[in-house]
Formats: sequence, structure tokens, C-alpha cells
Amino acid sequence: MTQNRRFLLRRRPHGDPVPDDFELVSEPIPHVPEGGFVMRNHYCSLDPAQRGWMADEPSYMPPIPLGDAVRATSVGQVHASDNADFPVGSWVMNLNAIEEFTPVVPGHFTAPIDVGIVDSPSKFLSAMGAVGLTAYFGMLDVAKPKQGETLCVSGAAGAVGSVVGQIGKIHGCRVIGIAGGTEKCRRLIDDYGFDVAIDYRGKSQEELREEIGKAAPDGLDMVFENVGGDILEAEVFNLAKDARIVLCGLISEYNSVEKHGLQNLWQLIVHQASIHGFLIMDYADRFPEGGAQIAQWMAEGKVRIDEDVQEGIENTYDAFMRLFSGKNTGKLILKIA
Amino acid sequence: MTQNRRFLLRRRPHGDPVPDDFELVSEPIPHVPEGGFVMRNHYCSLDPAQRGWMADEPSYMPPIPLGDAVRATSVGQVHASDNADFPVGSWVMNLNAIEEFTPVVPGHFTAPIDVGIVDSPSKFLSAMGAVGLTAYFGMLDVAKPKQGETLCVSGAAGAVGSVVGQIGKIHGCRVIGIAGGTEKCRRLIDDYGFDVAIDYRGKSQEELREEIGKAAPDGLDMVFENVGGDILEAEVFNLAKDARIVLCGLISEYNSVEKHGLQNLWQLIVHQASIHGFLIMDYADRFPEGGAQIAQWMAEGKVRIDEDVQEGIENTYDAFMRLFSGKNTGKLILKIA
Repeated sequence: MTQNRRFLLRRRPHGDPVPDDFELVSEPIPHVPEGGFVMRNHYCSLDPAQRGWMADEPSYMPPIPLGDAVRATSVGQVHASDNADFPVGSWVMNLNAIEEFTPVVPGHFTAPIDVGIVDSPSKFLSAMGAVGLTAYFGMLDVAKPKQGETLCVSGAAGAVGSVVGQIGKIHGCRVIGIAGGTEKCRRLIDDYGFDVAIDYRGKSQEELREEIGKAAPDGLDMVFENVGGDILEAEVFNLAKDARIVLCGLISEYNSVEKHGLQNLWQLIVHQASIHGFLIMDYADRFPEGGAQIAQWMAEGKVRIDEDVQEGIENTYDAFMRLFSGKNTGKLILKIA
Repeated sequence: MTQNRRFLLRRRPHGDPVPDDFELVSEPIPHVPEGGFVMRNHYCSLDPAQRGWMADEPSYMPPIPLGDAVRATSVGQVHASDNADFPVGSWVMNLNAIEEFTPVVPGHFTAPIDVGIVDSPSKFLSAMGAVGLTAYFGMLDVAKPKQGETLCVSGAAGAVGSVVGQIGKIHGCRVIGIAGGTEKCRRLIDDYGFDVAIDYRGKSQEELREEIGKAAPDGLDMVFENVGGDILEAEVFNLAKDARIVLCGLISEYNSVEKHGLQNLWQLIVHQASIHGFLIMDYADRFPEGGAQIAQWMAEGKVRIDEDVQEGIENTYDAFMRLFSGKNTGKLILKIA
């Protein structure tokens, strides 16, 4: 192999990304940077956050420059090296891009990984990666579950949501999951041990509001929000006093030109509730703690994490759009080697 | 006096309240309830919260029943009594209604007051009442100001906002106030010691966003929100990391049929910021602490609290609407005796 296929951002998407916003190009394999290495990316994480990075709006990371490959967390092997800490063949996790080879100067996000402790290196993009850690810190440090409380999770069958619900059960909470379609709702109950599954498909905001109310007659003590829109509106009319809403994502509106946000913000005053915008980057120095706890729960059979692995860099666009169509059945990962 | 004039809610307002939503009636003075007393209301508090109580929506208090007088915090004197703790002529504060006489069975909100310590009994509806206490607990317990931080207050020339800003200054913060009109902005600087005053009148959301950004180049660490709408949208694009937004009120939308809320909710994720719905009712057992601190700050000349006293129960509607037209210049109070 002498070529480096790269999935470039050519145009900032307006609404739903379309194939012409991107271009797959083939370039020479990059040179080894001084003190760094070239990484062969095997698995790239596909996440809703990437849609945000494609926009030209202030965010916690700069927008992906037009003409650059789409930024992505990746795991792979060192292909060529000028750094003794990263010998050729060793496995590494880094914030790279959707491309076969990336020149890396080790930084904040660069970590050697021990793939011997997992059944697939992809686990470092799911259980041991952002998915498990987002669920862990969002629940333990922000939502702070107490025995007997009620937790509602939206995007519940998704990668983060399914782990959030399982952590709620570990802490003795009643867990309500909201997901799209009967099969996802079945998985919430059968695979992840949720108490109640609510299918949002085909339901109005008022119907959702009523259904959540029936499932949580004393109100929601915690909401772990991945979706936004009508689902969030329906939830805020069912808050218990002093409810905590962990705002992890708003996938329903990432492709929207007009932002929906939260119209019924006044319900926060009524319930003296709080919303906490949440990113795991602040917790970087505690990742080992979170990763170890997730690994232990998995070993004890208390947490199950599913992956949806799509193959081939030439299929990136279709794979990415599974996030927004609701097709993905677990952490979405692109295997490119 | 043998009659009791009462300001009744006849119809739930749709959008802006209109005169026909109310009726001023004259009824006999009520009988003394067993173990209670009849209170002659002297001052009634006029607050944005009353607009919420007129609606038929779930809230922290039941809606005002149609045909009842409009609920209001009042101070007045005992007119007739069947309770030795409340002798005739003694001064009392209670959650009553806009009416000359109210039959009272002492409850959670009933408190004897010592009018000898203030220049007017109305102070128990401003400095020593909900206004001072809302500013005190909202700042000290929710916003938690730190020396050198930047605070932005909307509705800054209003009753609560002006005290919030002064508490920010006491804690060594840079304080930005947003208000409507040059005269209000002048008062922010000259009367209340704010560092920056921003006049929102005639400005688009984008212009406000830019103006706040210039006044707070390192971002807003705290927002004390009384208004909502475009002002809140402009603020959330200027948050510092880990910003705290105290959501005290949303007066811009109390008369709106469609709720605006917060469209750019995603900015909370970007800045890892939080919004806290806030009511002072939870702090009832600490009201003496808050009242004492406010009284001390006033005595030391560190806090100034203005009142806008309107007279006559027959002028209730016009007085109440001053809240929404921005005409009031301090805590709005109706004097009816």
C-alpha cells in the first residue's frame, strides 16, 4: 500500500449532510513528523459531535477546515516512527481523522493502548472510550443518582444511552428509556434491563408527555438527554422537584438549520430544576478511574456495550448517516483496516 | 368602611392581559375565620409571577381560580381577630390577594412584622421581602460569585436585578447590566454601581451578542436571568467555561402564547455551562439570615433598593401592566390603604 485514502470535508453541510459535502481522495502516505510517527488507522469513531465540527460556529473545538479530512477519534498501529515511546507496530489511540494514515505528534489525546485486554481494539472507541466514559462521568459526577430515584434516558438504545441506563440500574434507580421503534424498545428491556421503554415514533409532544407521566407518576429526578426537540419538551413537563438534566447531546437538531432548543424553559423554574451542559474532556485526568470501573462492570456482567461496526472508508458517508436515521444498533464505528 | 373592594380574575388572559380579564367588585367585609383574623391590606406586591398564576398551566402554585381575587403578597394590619397572636392593629405579612380585606387562617406564609425598623411597611415587600431574598439566595447559593468573575444581569434596573448587581459588586465581580432605555442604563451606573450598562432597545440578537462580547471579552461566568428571549440567546453565545445561569424569570415571554425558551441550548454543551431554575420558597427557613444581611448592607450604604409605589385598588390593571411595559422604576407595589 502506497496510497492514503482520505475522507475530506469539501463544503459545510446545510441541514442534512449530503454526499457532495465530502470527497474521498487518494494521496501519498505522509512523512513521519519530527519526534512523532505515522499512524495506520484501523477503527474510526463516528459520533454526532462530528456534525458540530463540520459547522462554522463557535464550539469547544475549532471547525474542521474545509479541505481537511473529517476529524475522528481513531485506534490503530504505528506505521513508521521517530519516537521511541511509539515503536512501529504498537497500538495507539488518538484524535486523528477519517483517513488511512495520519501523521501524529503526540499530544493531549495520544495514548498507547493494550489491545490484549479486549476482544477487539474497537472497544477503545466504545466501552473503554468516550462512550463508556461519557456515561460514567455524566451519571456519577453530574446526575448523581440516589437509590430509588427515577431516571429518564433519551436515545436510550444508542451507545451512550444504553450504558447510562445500566449505570442507573446499578445505583438502584427506576430507569425509563426513550427510543425509536419496537426493536430498540425490546433491546432496552431484554438486553439492557431498563424498567420501561417508550417508543417515540409517531407520537406528538403531548402524547409523549402523557406517556412519560404515566411511567413516572412522581416525576423524573434525572434526565440524561441525548436527543432534544419534542422529547426534551415532553420530559420537562414531567420533572420532579430539584431534577437534574444532563445535557449530553441534541442529535435531533444537529442537522437543523433552525435550532429548536428548549421552548418550555420556564418549567425549570417551576421545578427548581437544572440543566448541565456536559463534555468529558474536563475529566481527562480521571479517565483511568472511569475506564477501570466500566471494565469491572463489564467483567461482572452488569454492563453490556454493543458496537455497530461498518466497514470500508468508501462507505463513510452512508455509515455516518446511520447516526441520524436511527439505524445504528450500538456504538457506531468505521473499520478501515 | 363597610365594603371590601376586590380585584377579581374573570378570564384567563390570552397573551397580554386586557382590562376585561379582570373586574373590580365591592362585597361585604368578610367574617373572622375561627382561630384566624381579618387583615386590612395596605400594600400589595405586583410581580411577574402573578401573570403565571393567571394561566391554567402546571406551576409551583395552583392557578388563581376564576372569580377569585388576584393572589398577591400583602402587608397590612389586623382588622378583627380570633387569634391572640394576631391582635387587632398589629402588622402582618401574608400571601393574600388584591382586595381591601382578607380572611386569614395563619399558615406557612403568615408572619408578624415589626414596621418600626423600616421607613415604610412596604419595605417588607421589597428589601426585606421576596426581592431582596431572591437576589440574596440566587446569588449566594446558586451563582456563587468569586472575586474577579464577570456577572451579567438582565432586567438589571428592575427590583431584583438592581440588587443582584450590587451583591455582585460586594463580592468583587465585574457587573454588566442589560436594561431598556438610556435612563435605566444611567441608573445602573449612577445609582447601583454597575460597571457596564447595555441598552437592549432597538438592537437585534446579533447586535446584543456582539455588544456583550465586547463588554466581557473573557466571557460571562454568571448570568442572572430575569428576561429571556433574545437577551438570553445573546448571553449564551458569550459564556465562559463552567458558566452558571440563574434562571429567575422570563418576563419577555410571560404574555406570549408561544414560548420562546432557549433555542441555542447547545451552547451549554460547548461551554459546559448550567442553568438553574430558581425559586426562593425552598429557602424559607433561611429568610431571617437573608433579611438580616440585606438590612446590614442597606445600613452600610452598600445596597440601595428602590420602590415604585402606585396608589389605589381602582388602578390595579394599569399598575400591573407597568411590569411588562418596562415603566416601573424599582419594586412595583400597589398601595391600597
